[in-house]
Amino acid sequence: MTATRAKVPAKRADAQRSIEAILDAAIRSLSRNPEASVSEIAKTAGVGRVTVYGHFPNRADLVEAAMTRAIADGHAGLEAVDLSGDPREALARLIDSSWQLVSQSRSLLTAAQDVLSPGRIRELHAGPVERVEGLVERGRAEGVFRTDLPTTWLVGVLHSIMHSAADEINAGRLTPDVAADYIAATALSAFTPPSLAG
Amino acid sequence: MTATRAKVPAKRADAQRSIEAILDAAIRSLSRNPEASVSEIAKTAGVGRVTVYGHFPNRADLVEAAMTRAIADGHAGLEAVDLSGDPREALARLIDSSWQLVSQSRSLLTAAQDVLSPGRIRELHAGPVERVEGLVERGRAEGVFRTDLPTTWLVGVLHSIMHSAADEINAGRLTPDVAADYIAATALSAFTPPSLAG
Repeated sequence: MTATRAKVPAKRADAQRSIEAILDAAIRSLSRNPEASVSEIAKTAGVGRVTVYGHFPNRADLVEAAMTRAIADGHAGLEAVDLSGDPREALARLIDSSWQLVSQSRSLLTAAQDVLSPGRIRELHAGPVERVEGLVERGRAEGVFRTDLPTTWLVGVLHSIMHSAADEINAGRLTPDVAADYIAATALSAFTPPSLAG
Repeated sequence: MTATRAKVPAKRADAQRSIEAILDAAIRSLSRNPEASVSEIAKTAGVGRVTVYGHFPNRADLVEAAMTRAIADGHAGLEAVDLSGDPREALARLIDSSWQLVSQSRSLLTAAQDVLSPGRIRELHAGPVERVEGLVERGRAEGVFRTDLPTTWLVGVLHSIMHSAADEINAGRLTPDVAADYIAATALSAFTPPSLAG
């Protein structure tokens, strides 16, 4: 692979840098405004529209690439969260970090939902979802998370509680500073085995 | 009012019947296809497009009126649910009936989300939401629902769990027959006071 890499023409390396700059600009622009146009993104990236269209045939392709990149970056950050020890405490730590990402990415997600199918958006999230699933499975095996409902259901519930928090913040009924605590308190109760509840 | 009603010209009564037929057709058409056009809705109602536009200046107005009507009809049905007795059992009954409505109205809601703001959609749901809030408040007063999180948050969580169920069904990971039970089991755990949980 190193030999191949060394042969990459300078032109291709330039193209790669241009793509990176466009994706960075797309993430920044769409995070401010989910309806940001290709022209705005090009301007933020410091390139012309024609250059953007040279790499991404249409806006939907660009939004999908930006979303893919943002999820990959976020997933890398979540990898740093320590998931060892008590699964309940590990889940609270993971929620705290995940929530920051969900909260920052709301506008980008809105942009993605406008151009991608729910199935495609789920596919893009497969990496982060797998990590949550692994933790939930461990908690079930250790008897601290419920087993009367499927793991996929519990992960879906956690996901929807996070988006509910974002909706409540948008509606002015929740302040961002308490959101992670509310989400964790709710999810941990929802995940508790019924036999352990009152 | 009776005197006034008797004076309503036949023309106005006809217009009212025409509006009812259009709204019925809009609910039916949008429940099959959230992108149903005004032409399709007019055809289903057995009237011309011009007649529809005579009552609803544009498609968004028509979708909003259809959504308003569907919620009013659904709300009337929910009023029949007995909310007395143990708040947990009452909540399970309310979830069972509400879920049928949410499940049937997914396509219509998608249509509404395309043309109405989240704030407007929330306003339209104010009636049904108030009823849930009243039940949650009673459960809190009786010590069976948690008070460490606000009522609005708990109602939002219930709402998002229902929509999560609809997403899971669409994704083929949940069968409709168990959905109401999953939603109730999850919400009741999430609503349990932490002091009563294990």
